Amino acid sequence: MSTSSAGTAQPAARTFTVDRLIEFITRSYVAVGMPEADARTTATLMIEADLLGSDAHGIFRLPQYIRRAREGGFNLRPDIRIERETAATAVLDGDNAMGHLVVQRAAQIAIAKAREAGVAWVGLHHGNHAGAGAVYARMPLAHGMIGIYGAVGSANHLPPWGGMEMLLSTNPLAIAVPACEEPPVVLDMATTVASYGKIKARAQRGESMPEGWMMGYDGKPLLDPKRSNEGFLMPIGGHKGYGLALMIGLFAGSLNGAAIGRDVVDFNADYRSVTNTGQCVIAVNPAAFGDPQVIGRDVDRVVREMRSAKRLPGVDRIQVPGEGSHRRRETQLREGITLPAPLLDILARLAGDLAIAPLA
Amino acid sequence: MSTSSAGTAQPAARTFTVDRLIEFITRSYVAVGMPEADARTTATLMIEADLLGSDAHGIFRLPQYIRRAREGGFNLRPDIRIERETAATAVLDGDNAMGHLVVQRAAQIAIAKAREAGVAWVGLHHGNHAGAGAVYARMPLAHGMIGIYGAVGSANHLPPWGGMEMLLSTNPLAIAVPACEEPPVVLDMATTVASYGKIKARAQRGESMPEGWMMGYDGKPLLDPKRSNEGFLMPIGGHKGYGLALMIGLFAGSLNGAAIGRDVVDFNADYRSVTNTGQCVIAVNPAAFGDPQVIGRDVDRVVREMRSAKRLPGVDRIQVPGEGSHRRRETQLREGITLPAPLLDILARLAGDLAIAPLA
Repeated sequence: MSTSSAGTAQPAARTFTVDRLIEFITRSYVAVGMPEADARTTATLMIEADLLGSDAHGIFRLPQYIRRAREGGFNLRPDIRIERETAATAVLDGDNAMGHLVVQRAAQIAIAKAREAGVAWVGLHHGNHAGAGAVYARMPLAHGMIGIYGAVGSANHLPPWGGMEMLLSTNPLAIAVPACEEPPVVLDMATTVASYGKIKARAQRGESMPEGWMMGYDGKPLLDPKRSNEGFLMPIGGHKGYGLALMIGLFAGSLNGAAIGRDVVDFNADYRSVTNTGQCVIAVNPAAFGDPQVIGRDVDRVVREMRSAKRLPGVDRIQVPGEGSHRRRETQLREGITLPAPLLDILARLAGDLAIAPLA
Repeated sequence: MSTSSAGTAQPAARTFTVDRLIEFITRSYVAVGMPEADARTTATLMIEADLLGSDAHGIFRLPQYIRRAREGGFNLRPDIRIERETAATAVLDGDNAMGHLVVQRAAQIAIAKAREAGVAWVGLHHGNHAGAGAVYARMPLAHGMIGIYGAVGSANHLPPWGGMEMLLSTNPLAIAVPACEEPPVVLDMATTVASYGKIKARAQRGESMPEGWMMGYDGKPLLDPKRSNEGFLMPIGGHKGYGLALMIGLFAGSLNGAAIGRDVVDFNADYRSVTNTGQCVIAVNPAAFGDPQVIGRDVDRVVREMRSAKRLPGVDRIQVPGEGSHRRRETQLREGITLPAPLLDILARLAGDLAIAPLA
């Protein structure tokens, strides 16, 4: 147990196995009426986000999801179905299910279609917040395929460039490319400098934000994450990030008949309205483009070139995207996932509310 | 004719019709041995870049392309062919043709395949620099489709994040989405804060660069575009832009068996080596996702929401991506394209070299 510099006792962080955490999340969902199989799938996908280091999209979100389930915001007995399809596309009606279930289905369909068609683009409407994009972009990797994920975020935090009215979300983009001997290259980015999840995590840890993450409505930098409702997120590269967020929004929203712009329900503030969240998953089969081994070895080469590039003074190591989360995933699978004390308190209260056994 | 503030005569900019410029470029290529039809196609695509406001990718590039053609860097009698295909993908061998010809062919194939398959992803190798990405991303618009274009740029200007060795190019991404009543939404961005084309144009105009465009090898901001060989471009959003550039590079390069990383030939310095440039064009058919009219009207709505958002103090107007180039295109189609005096001088010398009639 750690102690503060003043010597007073600090609440301790604790480490759990993946199985233990999945079990706890599963029981939480079952307690609010979700079928066991769906609960376990959702739990596994949430913990996958923690494994990859996307703490703000893992078990951290459980209280919010459970509250939405209890208040009727999710359909706990959904009929997720293909509404429309071609050889290389599909549109799913998520039937307001837990977002994780709908996006996983979209990824499975994209993988199956890309096997023959070489590429497949699957969109969905009436989904919900689905956590970390990398979780879904990585799904095609197990089939030797590239995965791409885009989403309309579940709350608007970004104004159009030059504006102060938040009409776009962080609209994340995740891309996963298989290598041969190297770990896959996996990019998972918000089109804003910071994601709202990261800001929430900073607020929970009592830390401030660097300049450039948010701007206040007064046009000045906003540094206190607890005051995040007094401003908006900044896009990467100014107008470029705005353009990218808009395009991902059109792909995941307008193209699928899902919410975008003023239609978006702020799922941090409203636990009941149907969000009509839209996402898309694209799978690309390297076998349609060449010998997958040759392509994978070229990815290896590129990764190694980046990593061995001459470094700027003071830089110890150059990484490729996804290298850090890959290492973190391996370590946490072996050593377990450590949850900070404030989150443990929240989860303990949740267990009490749901009358289930606490995490132990 | 404009005069300087000191009253001395300045060389004059001059305005030409689109047809006149296409004719001049066509004659230039024919003079170095390109078949007339290919010359005219290339000329039309180059002037399309000028029309859209991408001056750095239009007629401005002609002397460089002509030099490469004369020194044997292009195959002027290429056999551009489909090497591999599925219902929704194709890989083209560009046979070291003028890049514009190869990417246009890729876009045509993507459009044809997406009509049935709903989406099509066409990659190519052994292409060359093809100018402005928006030109190709916009091609599916005429068929009611979304277009996406990605490329490995034709010279490395971007190090991996934390590095100082330039192993990536600006790797541009262009996306065009049709609306219904509104002009299409068209994003055309380098993954760097500035593109090298823009920097070249600044150098030609004798202007300096803002801080944040380039970093010198000394780790300090580089402001003089004429010293651009003393540093490297900065990615948008730091490590995010690096990740995006790498991913676009893997899609356009590794997946197609095209150059990326240390393989990339600097086409600004080497006019003879085969560049093996890679690009990809994706077409997405909204009809596979829903009623194209309904989707187009939702894009209209989103565009109008962005444009009418509450503005920050001092901002006159909020734009959506592509709005400026759309207006510029309409105006220039009507009023002609104005070329600055230094470029006119260069083109006059080129006409002399090629023994063709000068622009008049």
